Amino acid sequence: MADSQVHRASTFAPVNIAVIKYWGKRDAKLNLPTNSSLSVTLSQDDLRTHTTASCSSTFDRDSLTLNGSDQDISGARTQACLQELRQLRQEVEQKDGSLPKLSEFRLKIVSENNFPTAAGLASSAAGFAALVRAIANLYELPATPTELSRIARQGSGSACRSLMGGYVAWEKGERADGLDSVAYEVSPASHWPNMQALILVASAEKKDVSSTSGMQQTVASSALFAHRADEVVPKRMKAMEKAVHEQDFEAFAVLTMKDSNNFHAVCLDTQPPIFYMNDTSRAAVRVCESLNAASPDGKPLCAYTFDAGPNAVIYYLAENEEQVAGTFKNILGDKTGWEGARGQKVNKAGALPQGTEVAAEVLQKGISRVILTAVGDGPKKTDEHLC
Amino acid sequence: MADSQVHRASTFAPVNIAVIKYWGKRDAKLNLPTNSSLSVTLSQDDLRTHTTASCSSTFDRDSLTLNGSDQDISGARTQACLQELRQLRQEVEQKDGSLPKLSEFRLKIVSENNFPTAAGLASSAAGFAALVRAIANLYELPATPTELSRIARQGSGSACRSLMGGYVAWEKGERADGLDSVAYEVSPASHWPNMQALILVASAEKKDVSSTSGMQQTVASSALFAHRADEVVPKRMKAMEKAVHEQDFEAFAVLTMKDSNNFHAVCLDTQPPIFYMNDTSRAAVRVCESLNAASPDGKPLCAYTFDAGPNAVIYYLAENEEQVAGTFKNILGDKTGWEGARGQKVNKAGALPQGTEVAAEVLQKGISRVILTAVGDGPKKTDEHLC
Repeated sequence: MADSQVHRASTFAPVNIAVIKYWGKRDAKLNLPTNSSLSVTLSQDDLRTHTTASCSSTFDRDSLTLNGSDQDISGARTQACLQELRQLRQEVEQKDGSLPKLSEFRLKIVSENNFPTAAGLASSAAGFAALVRAIANLYELPATPTELSRIARQGSGSACRSLMGGYVAWEKGERADGLDSVAYEVSPASHWPNMQALILVASAEKKDVSSTSGMQQTVASSALFAHRADEVVPKRMKAMEKAVHEQDFEAFAVLTMKDSNNFHAVCLDTQPPIFYMNDTSRAAVRVCESLNAASPDGKPLCAYTFDAGPNAVIYYLAENEEQVAGTFKNILGDKTGWEGARGQKVNKAGALPQGTEVAAEVLQKGISRVILTAVGDGPKKTDEHLC
Repeated sequence: MADSQVHRASTFAPVNIAVIKYWGKRDAKLNLPTNSSLSVTLSQDDLRTHTTASCSSTFDRDSLTLNGSDQDISGARTQACLQELRQLRQEVEQKDGSLPKLSEFRLKIVSENNFPTAAGLASSAAGFAALVRAIANLYELPATPTELSRIARQGSGSACRSLMGGYVAWEKGERADGLDSVAYEVSPASHWPNMQALILVASAEKKDVSSTSGMQQTVASSALFAHRADEVVPKRMKAMEKAVHEQDFEAFAVLTMKDSNNFHAVCLDTQPPIFYMNDTSRAAVRVCESLNAASPDGKPLCAYTFDAGPNAVIYYLAENEEQVAGTFKNILGDKTGWEGARGQKVNKAGALPQGTEVAAEVLQKGISRVILTAVGDGPKKTDEHLC
């Protein structure tokens, strides 16, 4: 008797934004990085992927739909994830012969982001984390988030950090097979819950160089890259873990800004050079630096970081919201996004920091919308199914 | 009997644009650099400082006028130059008692640039080279250009490279007193005379950070800087000297672009970050990279380099003028400066390189004028006196 039942499970998974950056692979096939990295998981109220994984003996092919459009899943990365998950399910089935043989069924995966894909936000991290988590739920795998992170990493490197909430490190690992290149939770969101993030979304500009090809160009041609990977990052990883454990925003902010700049420096040192930051990004740096320079106690109020694109992500503590987010609202109050999903209300700061008038004009022209968010939890199981 | 005669001597001195960049001082007082550098001296037909040095027993103070306005000469740098030159004159006077005691007279120095100061071109190099050369002429010093370079270096580091023509290296030296931190001619202009330079002058933008304070911030805070100074530049200096000796434009171009990007990378890695390149600079890079990518024999046709500002300097060989300068004339034909002082005529190239339409628009908006020039000779004595 053929079982024609459709099995399904769903999850939400978060976006993460690194404060110690991942850039460079020591193994491009397995997505093994040249250095460890550390990120903050952002709240799923504002940014999340919702994914339903389903399977049935009646499905005739594996399929993946994202925001309503069919995706190609024949790529080696997606295939690696599906194959590893099926193998884990097989092991479960072998131990308990009464379980349905889901590992033999084709998968239908449906995904939706609650944020505009055009915004240029690293959606592949949330996407692969959701895919792996949803299938692991469907297969009822006993795997821990760290074990699943090893699989998600093969889909998209930074996806491994979206399987946990709060403050998450990805250990580069030493093994050639990548078994020790996994993510772990440094601290949960509840340990340091007042970390806020304001994202300034730059007006759409087509990315010149994809992250994957860009990072390998850097590895191959930058005279500074090896020094970053071997010397600079290992020290910063330790210092950043300490900053998180001690809720030391000053150390967190200085390291975050330095590491963003260091990452973009090795991009610029690539042949041909890779520029992800533009004049709008520079203006955001300028406003942050001026806010920090004017800080009453001399300690930074905010920290900027930029991924492989011009969007600024600005971290700050909830108690400094008016000074930090309020200053940007003063400049960008007419853009959408100031009404965060959690209903917070940001008051405009009274005046611009000294010397930021030109930067404010550049931001006015170059930023299309903002996203107001905060540190958040890891993937959440849900009964809302998309198929 | 008091000698009331006015003694005078005049010189022209050139601008130089480094292809291996000077950034960072190991001794800020003596202007001793952390790494050696190498530059191309540009033609004085297009860019030069004209300086007259005069002295007389009737003058009651040292003075310096630049483009008609009085300059402060009380600074330690100018004073160091004047003092060293007077001391050399004293030695001459001690050997020959019949010579007038010019070392005891006050100096009147008058300087004029043949290019707009607002253009943001490194005018201090030509200025200090002209000052030192004019006074050395006035004092009839037997010093060689290399000996004078040691003095000019104390006025402005890169000025030491403007005392010679063609291709000039500045050896960083090892001594604490800086006696071995001098410039020498790698090859005269006549060795490789077909080197051309097109300067794209970006619309005026106030420089955020002066070179002097900027470079010391980099030395103090960049995690990558020491690696650049200790490891990257020494190898490039050797390779660049070889490229010049062998007239190997491919090696020259690749090293020039890499070193410009490496220099701006350590600027970006500074805390707070220093940005000299802007979106207009990036657009110039894009057009150059596209020209090189489309080169018929796969070898670069041009090499961009950026100093501490957004202006692009683009080196190319005379035989590729239409492809390189002609492409930029196609984009920027309405800007002034296409009629070089030597009467050359650049023909517009037929079409833009593929994928440079957006970059062309950015250049159109961001570039105010061009300067069409070439490699040139060192300072030239002249009987045209400015006072």
